[in-house]
Amino acid sequence: MATTTKAQEASTTPFSDALRVTEGFVLADRDPHSTPAFDGDKAAGQKALAAADEELDDLQERLYARSRVGVDRQRVLLVVQGMDTSGKGGIMRHVVGAVDPQGVQLTSFKKPTEEELAHDFLWRIRKALPEPGMIGVFDRSHYEDVLVVRVHDLVPQEEWEQRYDVINAFEQELVDDDITLIKVMMHISPEEQKERLQERLDRPDKHWKFNPGDLDERAHWDAYQEAYQAVMDRCSPPGAPWYVVPADRKWYARLAVQQLLLEHLRQLDLEWPEADFDVEAEKARLAAM
Amino acid sequence: MATTTKAQEASTTPFSDALRVTEGFVLADRDPHSTPAFDGDKAAGQKALAAADEELDDLQERLYARSRVGVDRQRVLLVVQGMDTSGKGGIMRHVVGAVDPQGVQLTSFKKPTEEELAHDFLWRIRKALPEPGMIGVFDRSHYEDVLVVRVHDLVPQEEWEQRYDVINAFEQELVDDDITLIKVMMHISPEEQKERLQERLDRPDKHWKFNPGDLDERAHWDAYQEAYQAVMDRCSPPGAPWYVVPADRKWYARLAVQQLLLEHLRQLDLEWPEADFDVEAEKARLAAM
Repeated sequence: MATTTKAQEASTTPFSDALRVTEGFVLADRDPHSTPAFDGDKAAGQKALAAADEELDDLQERLYARSRVGVDRQRVLLVVQGMDTSGKGGIMRHVVGAVDPQGVQLTSFKKPTEEELAHDFLWRIRKALPEPGMIGVFDRSHYEDVLVVRVHDLVPQEEWEQRYDVINAFEQELVDDDITLIKVMMHISPEEQKERLQERLDRPDKHWKFNPGDLDERAHWDAYQEAYQAVMDRCSPPGAPWYVVPADRKWYARLAVQQLLLEHLRQLDLEWPEADFDVEAEKARLAAM
Repeated sequence: MATTTKAQEASTTPFSDALRVTEGFVLADRDPHSTPAFDGDKAAGQKALAAADEELDDLQERLYARSRVGVDRQRVLLVVQGMDTSGKGGIMRHVVGAVDPQGVQLTSFKKPTEEELAHDFLWRIRKALPEPGMIGVFDRSHYEDVLVVRVHDLVPQEEWEQRYDVINAFEQELVDDDITLIKVMMHISPEEQKERLQERLDRPDKHWKFNPGDLDERAHWDAYQEAYQAVMDRCSPPGAPWYVVPADRKWYARLAVQQLLLEHLRQLDLEWPEADFDVEAEKARLAAM
């Protein structure tokens, strides 16, 4: 693949090409502070984010409309992973929040409940899959079962080792069922995390977002990066690749995830569905009422 | 504590006082084209809607934060009812859509499924009740069981007649469980509905929103108004009153529902929760990492 400088191609490279994980990917080589596929500053990024709202709205409504009329079963699933404070909540609020809530199914996966633990790790995931026409969004996901579970050996290694293949088979099943899968890792630096945790401690209105457990997890930073690298190595086939989004700059990360969503929706060829009734006959009926 | 919004400044009457259903209410006397509690025009209304976003955002986050830290179990349930084309979807998109999706649980109640019909009519409603800290939103609700069910005699009269009391007891249970209930009827005129149905027939990108059944229902207009009047007469106790929102002007209806939500949130006295950990100790730990 030919490399191009930012100045040459910044505005014409799709975000999906710039951020997609491919063969030989090395997480440690990706700069969390960089802004691939975009050479503007923060103000330009915020402007670009707002400017794309209308198209996103239009495409989402077309996706939804097609399912209502039963034209097809297409739907989207945006999976968002990342370390604490990497900005997942901001993505939910500012990117997902800009989409009509009637077309979104958002699920935040927390520590599994007793009931969830009694089932296979994909049980709770399957229950949350988006219906046709919907944009499903996972805040954390089945990948926690090879991330936190691996770092803390919550199940024996031979068990979590098998999960990479199980996940690949599961995701292939989704793709075969007309689900457009967009897997995003919010890639933050440890220095930036420290600043964000500090802010949560400094501001009384942010205390509720802080949990002493966040610092326990921070102590395992390197093990988490290793676990993420393993995910990229083993669960990024061409049909369901990961996108690694540099997340030290919040404005860039939001723009990047929005554009990833847009670029995938554009590829779905979402024509408005034809009426499944006789339009002229209904007009005549209405006129007489 | 709460800042005043432009919508408040335009009139001294709170929207909740202007729109609340009280003893002796007559639906037919309410003008669907009026704009109670607001003196401005469309442009002023849209400006007021946007201006209140920040306060709504702040109050929603406080509500959510308190539940996370376990301070209380407060939550809100906004119930939206109305004839076809009365603008329920617009409320979801423009009012509910402005709230952080992580704090919203939106449920659209369609024609009941076989499974739902096999249970008591409140079964599916109870399953969708908001968790502590959340703003639940019902697009249609248990009131369909005394509206469409009554108009079409889908169950014997002696059965739907009992439901008003069942609903009152159910809602009292919710209020006792710290749920702030806001019941909104979108009040549209038959002339305005005709125009909106006409638009759905005229525009190919709106065909998917039209269903020939909408005209069948329109033919029962008077029976529906009567059923709504019965709801107002029998299910509007002081603790869980209805608010009838004139809905012929979309901009007004959106502003009114947003302001009803805001006025109710303001009454909850949502202080930020105190930290449930030792802030200074955590700061020291973080500094050492």
